[in-house]
Amino acid sequence: MRASGGLWITFEGGDGAGKTTQAELLREWFEQLGRTVVRTREPGGTEVGRTIREIVLHHRGGLGARAEALLFAADRAHHIDTIVAPALARGEVVIQDRYLDSSVAYQGAARDLGAGEVRELSLWATGGALPDVTVLMDLDPGAARQRLDADDKPFDRMEAEKAEFHARVRDGFLELARAEPDRFLVVDASLPATDIAGRIREELERRGR
Amino acid sequence: MRASGGLWITFEGGDGAGKTTQAELLREWFEQLGRTVVRTREPGGTEVGRTIREIVLHHRGGLGARAEALLFAADRAHHIDTIVAPALARGEVVIQDRYLDSSVAYQGAARDLGAGEVRELSLWATGGALPDVTVLMDLDPGAARQRLDADDKPFDRMEAEKAEFHARVRDGFLELARAEPDRFLVVDASLPATDIAGRIREELERRGR
Repeated sequence: MRASGGLWITFEGGDGAGKTTQAELLREWFEQLGRTVVRTREPGGTEVGRTIREIVLHHRGGLGARAEALLFAADRAHHIDTIVAPALARGEVVIQDRYLDSSVAYQGAARDLGAGEVRELSLWATGGALPDVTVLMDLDPGAARQRLDADDKPFDRMEAEKAEFHARVRDGFLELARAEPDRFLVVDASLPATDIAGRIREELERRGR
Repeated sequence: MRASGGLWITFEGGDGAGKTTQAELLREWFEQLGRTVVRTREPGGTEVGRTIREIVLHHRGGLGARAEALLFAADRAHHIDTIVAPALARGEVVIQDRYLDSSVAYQGAARDLGAGEVRELSLWATGGALPDVTVLMDLDPGAARQRLDADDKPFDRMEAEKAEFHARVRDGFLELARAEPDRFLVVDASLPATDIAGRIREELERRGR
């Protein structure tokens, strides 16, 4: 589906890891190199996607895990068909917040559905489409926890559960990265943003992108 | 998922085969026997389903085959979760227009996606839920064609393609029925409605329903 020059980069990682900042810095860099960049995100990058997102948010709690996974997969199929694949076919650069790996890591952590099933579903939805490079913004959930402890706030049971969930999400992402070292670039998200941006550019150049 | 007495019957077949008429006659019969009956349909038996149906109808043409199949599967998952499974758990009778077999027969005929893949997707969506009895209203598409010929209208290329499509749908349904003779009850939809209703009741009694 890629024309010459077509390049697809996704950013993954937990909330607050700095995905959007890095995606924007990378867009600027590619544009300075004279490339056309399409910035997009999942879920919700299309009109159909926004309607799907509304159904999910509106019915959260009243919507089963499978129905929700199928709706996100439908959004993904449509997003790839109408935004990503056409841009790659025009030889452009697509920079995207979240894709397949988020679904797998979050569902794996939530334990409603098997991570393998979610991956299969997603790959079926998109005809097996995978990014050229996936930047994983890796951040220790302990960092957030330390800040909380420093505030001297009590660490209650719900927060402990949340921390455990985020630790499972992080482990899930790192496991995916280990399984596909050629696709993934893992960066330490606790470093200054400009250092991270430099590291990503270097790595893309090294890989001949 | 079934309580004692819970019974799930689906009606399948092409448009105009008389599915709704027979479903209504069967509902009356069960109600006369003192049973509580839930009448439902796919797609669109729930609020979420109606929104999904709107997306599909609104974007038809602009929506890929996989996105459409995933949206229908999401509708199905939600419909089973919120309508069918609770009714069966209460020991009621669910009589439903169209289910899994329609998706498989129509997608198989349209040839956008593999019939096997569509079946897998649907079974994943519902955790493998299958009806106790599926009544296939079988009608020769040639009957419709003969009526057209009798009107002395020219039989153009598009109508020939349509006829071929409907013949493939019919073959698809019959193949499904052959593969699962215990679940399927195939009836000749060209017979008078009261004869068909009698045949369905007899068969349900014979099967101890």
